[in-house]
Amino acid sequence: MRAGPSQEEIRRHNLGALLRHVHLGGPTSRAELTSRMGLNRSTIMALTSDLTAAGLVREELPRETGRAGRPSLVVRPESSRVYVFAFDVGPDRLAAARVGLGGVILDRRESVRRRGAFDLEEVVGALAAFARQMHRKTRADTVCVGAAAAVSGGVDRSDGVVRYGPNLLQAEAPFGEALARKLGLGLQVSVGNDANLGALAEHTRGVGVSVRDLIYLHGDVGVGGGVIAGGHLLGGHEGFGGEVGHMVVHPGGRLCGCGSHGCLEAEVGERALLEAAGRTTEGPLGRDAVRAVVDAADRGDIVAQAALSRVGDWLGLGVANLVNIFNPEMVIFGGMLREVYLGSAAQVRSRLAIDALPAHREKLRLRTSELADDATLVGAAELAFAHVLADPLEALARVGG
Amino acid sequence: MRAGPSQEEIRRHNLGALLRHVHLGGPTSRAELTSRMGLNRSTIMALTSDLTAAGLVREELPRETGRAGRPSLVVRPESSRVYVFAFDVGPDRLAAARVGLGGVILDRRESVRRRGAFDLEEVVGALAAFARQMHRKTRADTVCVGAAAAVSGGVDRSDGVVRYGPNLLQAEAPFGEALARKLGLGLQVSVGNDANLGALAEHTRGVGVSVRDLIYLHGDVGVGGGVIAGGHLLGGHEGFGGEVGHMVVHPGGRLCGCGSHGCLEAEVGERALLEAAGRTTEGPLGRDAVRAVVDAADRGDIVAQAALSRVGDWLGLGVANLVNIFNPEMVIFGGMLREVYLGSAAQVRSRLAIDALPAHREKLRLRTSELADDATLVGAAELAFAHVLADPLEALARVGG
Repeated sequence: MRAGPSQEEIRRHNLGALLRHVHLGGPTSRAELTSRMGLNRSTIMALTSDLTAAGLVREELPRETGRAGRPSLVVRPESSRVYVFAFDVGPDRLAAARVGLGGVILDRRESVRRRGAFDLEEVVGALAAFARQMHRKTRADTVCVGAAAAVSGGVDRSDGVVRYGPNLLQAEAPFGEALARKLGLGLQVSVGNDANLGALAEHTRGVGVSVRDLIYLHGDVGVGGGVIAGGHLLGGHEGFGGEVGHMVVHPGGRLCGCGSHGCLEAEVGERALLEAAGRTTEGPLGRDAVRAVVDAADRGDIVAQAALSRVGDWLGLGVANLVNIFNPEMVIFGGMLREVYLGSAAQVRSRLAIDALPAHREKLRLRTSELADDATLVGAAELAFAHVLADPLEALARVGG
Repeated sequence: MRAGPSQEEIRRHNLGALLRHVHLGGPTSRAELTSRMGLNRSTIMALTSDLTAAGLVREELPRETGRAGRPSLVVRPESSRVYVFAFDVGPDRLAAARVGLGGVILDRRESVRRRGAFDLEEVVGALAAFARQMHRKTRADTVCVGAAAAVSGGVDRSDGVVRYGPNLLQAEAPFGEALARKLGLGLQVSVGNDANLGALAEHTRGVGVSVRDLIYLHGDVGVGGGVIAGGHLLGGHEGFGGEVGHMVVHPGGRLCGCGSHGCLEAEVGERALLEAAGRTTEGPLGRDAVRAVVDAADRGDIVAQAALSRVGDWLGLGVANLVNIFNPEMVIFGGMLREVYLGSAAQVRSRLAIDALPAHREKLRLRTSELADDATLVGAAELAFAHVLADPLEALARVGG
């Protein structure tokens, strides 16, 4: 119901649209931008010149066009100058990266975390130390334009506070605020749900590029989800949308951490698989333990095969439900569900054949995450860049770039 | 990634936005439009004058403002001049309405249908006859700008063909095309899923006005759903989105028409309730039979109470799953589920308390459909008006208005 935009709003929109083109698509010639954006050459030239003056892009002669005539200048993002900090708080690791405009990972740090309770000060301290180490190594003319973190659990969109989660046992954790303070760079830290950010990452830079309706399933200790519907991340009323791990698929089934029984997370999560495979959850946990079960099944271990078959059956039922509800074009398995799916694809597909409506599954593609363990980190970087792409000059002005 | 709009696109956008204001909000003063749309007075005047010249709105002096000074003219939709035809193909009825701009039902026809197979020619013939009857009664200066129909089942967005459905046994029914031909008014007939259109109706004119994230559950013979996510109808890749009736809530449960077991539809649909209440499904079916069970439970009939409790339990589980997945602000019960929910609200709520995540249910509102049996018809009218609101002058030009 809003009115159309003013001339200045259009210019800012166009600056963001052009920057988004080269951020997501890489170096692009002016001629291509002219045709893709449907604007005339002089407008593209003016926009490029504004972005160049701001230090966000630069123009270069292309290498070799093979064509006659004056070549069109190529616009490329200033990846080594303009960057964000991206953080990932996983159950087994803390990761931080310096990511340049265009999505280039310029530098990264990672440390192994002990499972268990989440100590806000400890986590925030470790991540900030990573960022400071990386910051110290940057050249003087670089500019940090944003920061964002991926966490498991429900992040309230209104204030970025983690309202609930499997690891962040103290709910109401003011995680973003605490990390921003500790960083001391004068930057806000956006916070997003890890599976939501994984969905965003696969949609912008992974297996789901140009797929407007997809579901990304992320397994760790728990199972999370991120849904891209009509090209947009499903947020829900408060930002908790996509929490598919707590869809009950087996009423009266295994006890879930949320207090309910038979949630998808309880039936296909790490613990369900390891227990079904007869591996005590006293031993090593995490991705390696899951891989060990899949490898054992590959080698003919009957117990491991039965465990994967059981978990794959529930996973297939969960996916069938989501396929009926969302009619996605693609479902992507990430985190430990990547391994689980690879080890149980036949079971998942046979459950889909029974429980998903034929019209919904006919054109469906099942895929594994392309970005693998980087998905959540890459998604956090995209979240951190979001305000720059929405209004590049305003965002730069705010950080004094 | 698209470029900003041109001046002419902005004007067309603004014409549509202004028309949408008065279509949804009713008569509105120029002063209010100026402030709500964020445009200046002369722009509003120019837009109003264009829409008046096209015969879509008219301007009037307000009755009594109670304020000093020259009163602002009120812009009202030309409801009696500009209209659409809306159709609803339900399991028990065929309905058609002539709906004026602004959502006023000007005329309507309805007939009872026998349950069972769907005869394309018969249904199309009856609906076209209704439309012709209503058309004959219109004045010469009226103009029909569109037509749309609500059907149960999956409607392919690409061609409007009904790909599957409980009643439309011949899948691939070219329903919209056949109805358009039979109408002979030179109009295309858009086709939408009944529950999707019910969601749209409650979102634009019912209990969900200004609610950006809602789920509408529609019960008839089957159970359908429509999801408004972030203010937009969830369509999915091919338009089948929102098919929540085939979410499996009870693996190994009751056989569903789709071939699977324990779908929400199989556990809470009309047949499940009537059978649980010990009423043979040989007797009368439909809304009256459902109401009879709820009334009996109200009067203390233990079997009816147990039936509602059982169905309410599965309904609660289904709603809990949807609340976890979508984090909606509101869930609306429509069709026969309105009765079922009213008769089992305690059971639904107690299941939600167990299976829905606390953060997701804290601010959740459960409501019954405000538009009741008109929801699908009202939604069809909104679908028929959609292209007029998107570009009023272009739409009028197409019908020679």
